[in-house]
Amino acid sequence: MDMPSYTVTERNKVRRVYLRGSYDKEAVFAVIDATPISHVGYVIDGQPYVTPTLVWRQGERLFWHGSSASRMLRTVKTGIPVCVTATLFDGWVMARSGFHHSANYRSAMAYGTAHAVQSAAEKDAALKVMMDGLFPGRWEEIRPSTAQELKATTVVTMEIEQASAKVRTGPPVDDDEDYALPVWAGVIPAATAYGAPVDDPKLTPGIGFPGKLSSLPK
Amino acid sequence: MDMPSYTVTERNKVRRVYLRGSYDKEAVFAVIDATPISHVGYVIDGQPYVTPTLVWRQGERLFWHGSSASRMLRTVKTGIPVCVTATLFDGWVMARSGFHHSANYRSAMAYGTAHAVQSAAEKDAALKVMMDGLFPGRWEEIRPSTAQELKATTVVTMEIEQASAKVRTGPPVDDDEDYALPVWAGVIPAATAYGAPVDDPKLTPGIGFPGKLSSLPK
Repeated sequence: MDMPSYTVTERNKVRRVYLRGSYDKEAVFAVIDATPISHVGYVIDGQPYVTPTLVWRQGERLFWHGSSASRMLRTVKTGIPVCVTATLFDGWVMARSGFHHSANYRSAMAYGTAHAVQSAAEKDAALKVMMDGLFPGRWEEIRPSTAQELKATTVVTMEIEQASAKVRTGPPVDDDEDYALPVWAGVIPAATAYGAPVDDPKLTPGIGFPGKLSSLPK
Repeated sequence: MDMPSYTVTERNKVRRVYLRGSYDKEAVFAVIDATPISHVGYVIDGQPYVTPTLVWRQGERLFWHGSSASRMLRTVKTGIPVCVTATLFDGWVMARSGFHHSANYRSAMAYGTAHAVQSAAEKDAALKVMMDGLFPGRWEEIRPSTAQELKATTVVTMEIEQASAKVRTGPPVDDDEDYALPVWAGVIPAATAYGAPVDDPKLTPGIGFPGKLSSLPK
């Protein structure tokens, strides 16, 4: 990548609570890379749609995928403007007034236009990047993709033209005169937690959970 | 509410994997009520924007709020079309082929137009509903809102004109011939987990975490 930051324009300018905003690519990428499921915004006939989907990154590009029959994918691959938002909820910020209650979070908004990855080989390579990012080692142990599966799958890619990140961390910030109030204040941290793997009821007896997956997913 | 289901049109029709889709209000409300942070989609000059924000429900209406200077709020309160998407990620579905890997999730997409809640009293009442939903008892123990705070806060409300919910649960569904492969398959469950409360470093000594908050948040 050539530049450490995205150019700031009307589109990606962080307008509120500006101290929390960043245009650094590193900050934007960190949020996107920590968020498997992002939200893709697009417009059909003036109506906005927001679809949750698995989004992954390679360099300056985002990728997402699904059935070739998906309306979202058929729409965004025509090169219309798209907004991809990644959000991590990190906890509740409990203040001494309602006004200063808040949430700790990390979010990134990325703007660009998407197009379809064309060849079966390029699609398969992109899907391997997705799988390797989520579950290292998994790609090698599963049954390879078939030509028919790749045909039935649309993979789209979007160069990030502009982006911004916004982060809130830390304790509440109350009005000076409210600190003396007899009210508990602080943070209730939140995070995505993974439970113990549940075997497929149809799993062949004797096949254990792969050790490689134990440190996963992020 | 008069009707148990939303009318299905081109806008809210669930197009893929239709068995997972629902237009039942009960199904839509269940997802929205279980998701504090939703994503609001709106359009400015043809460009979609997707903003994460706290969204709550009262009957057939959604509400969200923020600074009166927020571009998102100043935009959506003009009555333009809006899409509010609530998403819960429930786990990874690990199949024997890449094609059948999936995610368990619950999502709802709600469509309508928003307008600003006008009077200070109505704003404060809406904020109380928000707080009571997240943290029962909290509203009574914090310092009440001031006129200036309510002036600086925009609360918008949107009647849900149409909506749909989409849910995936359960184990992977593999191709018949793949079940014999020596590959682990199953589900890695995921959920939002809350950590132990962290006192504000400026907390007055002797004020403990309120018992009422212990069962919280949802």
